[in-house]
Amino acid sequence: MREEATAFVPGHVTGFFSAHPDDDPTKAGSRGAGLTLTDGVEVTVEPAAERTVVLDGEPIAIDPVVDVLEALEAPARVEAVSELPLGAGFGVSGAMALGTAFAANRVFERHRSRNELVAIAHAAEVRAGTGLGDVVAQAQGGIPIRLEPGGPAVNELDAVPARSRVEYVPFGELSTADVLAGETAQLSRAGEAALSRIVEEPTLEAFMDASERFARDAELLTPPLEAAIEDVTAVDGQASMAMLGETVFALGTGLSDAGYEPSVCTTHPAGAVLK
Amino acid sequence: MREEATAFVPGHVTGFFSAHPDDDPTKAGSRGAGLTLTDGVEVTVEPAAERTVVLDGEPIAIDPVVDVLEALEAPARVEAVSELPLGAGFGVSGAMALGTAFAANRVFERHRSRNELVAIAHAAEVRAGTGLGDVVAQAQGGIPIRLEPGGPAVNELDAVPARSRVEYVPFGELSTADVLAGETAQLSRAGEAALSRIVEEPTLEAFMDASERFARDAELLTPPLEAAIEDVTAVDGQASMAMLGETVFALGTGLSDAGYEPSVCTTHPAGAVLK
Repeated sequence: MREEATAFVPGHVTGFFSAHPDDDPTKAGSRGAGLTLTDGVEVTVEPAAERTVVLDGEPIAIDPVVDVLEALEAPARVEAVSELPLGAGFGVSGAMALGTAFAANRVFERHRSRNELVAIAHAAEVRAGTGLGDVVAQAQGGIPIRLEPGGPAVNELDAVPARSRVEYVPFGELSTADVLAGETAQLSRAGEAALSRIVEEPTLEAFMDASERFARDAELLTPPLEAAIEDVTAVDGQASMAMLGETVFALGTGLSDAGYEPSVCTTHPAGAVLK
Repeated sequence: MREEATAFVPGHVTGFFSAHPDDDPTKAGSRGAGLTLTDGVEVTVEPAAERTVVLDGEPIAIDPVVDVLEALEAPARVEAVSELPLGAGFGVSGAMALGTAFAANRVFERHRSRNELVAIAHAAEVRAGTGLGDVVAQAQGGIPIRLEPGGPAVNELDAVPARSRVEYVPFGELSTADVLAGETAQLSRAGEAALSRIVEEPTLEAFMDASERFARDAELLTPPLEAAIEDVTAVDGQASMAMLGETVFALGTGLSDAGYEPSVCTTHPAGAVLK
């Protein structure tokens, strides 16, 4: 057993998605596309008599993390440091689950493969209702297109072969679990239409365009988001909403050009990695 | 059309493999496992009236690169700068094919997805006989396990969730095309055995162990390689041979400890990326 191990997991903003429930959480998930971000979460796991989860210095209850520790039979303290806010659509819970899986596998020498660890973290997220597609995207990095839902054994992934500067402004929180528990039929129809668009033209421009249309069609925009997207469009930029959080994101200098003071990062070339 | 685009593709040493020919080059390929390397190839593509390929300042004929340019209808000059020698088992031709695909897609705005670009480069390598599994591994990064052969539409990939310092010494060249054109039945049996071993225990130690056994069973070791592996083993290190080149590689400080003066890099966390 090692003393500790640390993994970095990129943040992930989903631009559009459709929900695909299944009784088997390794098969449930979402289709869609998003951007992984150089801003992310660093997760350190060390053996401990009592299971504890700490985010940015504060003890916190994150069900998927506990679930992952149980799946790996890993009695541990998990300490996460995040550059991104929780509950604002950046996949922080997914990052914590995936980072915990990678780091605990190393510390406790569980000898699981990458796909097995991704499946464990994905299933934990699905069971908790905190996400449907962040984990598999965060394991791949780049600009993932999720063609088929589920964990690594059943899903199908592609990607937009590009990279970009990304700006974002979080206005507030939105509960993924609440939205997913509600009526998702209209949302999923809009998500399938957006996916067809990006499969036809896998570029950043098409991704942003499809994302903005999805946010409107799914009727998830709040007034601050609507205003920010309009402001960016007015300066010839492209912006949309992070699914699911009250967060606006834009490519390049879209939000700065529109007078906002955004956080700035870029798309992340790699998936989750041990440090 | 853009003026130029540059992609970086990590090097890749295969530790073991089995060959799986198919009339369809997008389905042909290899099973096996290897290490992608932070030492790699930078490929710049710019539009040009005449197709030219340059490696480290010298014009060179690399069939898979020309094949990729034709597939993407990209009349271009390709300029590659490699940290790794050609023909020594580092996947340099695969890196050039894949880097050309990513960069040409961007320059000529061909709107292909990542998987489509990987498929084009993979098929080009297979057709030229210069490689069977490097391209899909170099597109993924990390320490790829190739569970099923072929391009992205048909293959299955996993990975060893780890990273490591890597040392290597190239002694000379070995023609991949010559070895693959010969009798590969014994080699493939040894490769399948090695794959079972790493599926059971996806760790770096098991990878090195399976690779060394494969090199012996496949009867590909030359006297300098045999001596170097013994020297590293004598100082409690693990070393094996890069498939296919007269190159020895080791984890950590294996070769330095044994008195060699190796090149040093680490496993690469990401697959091919546009710069």
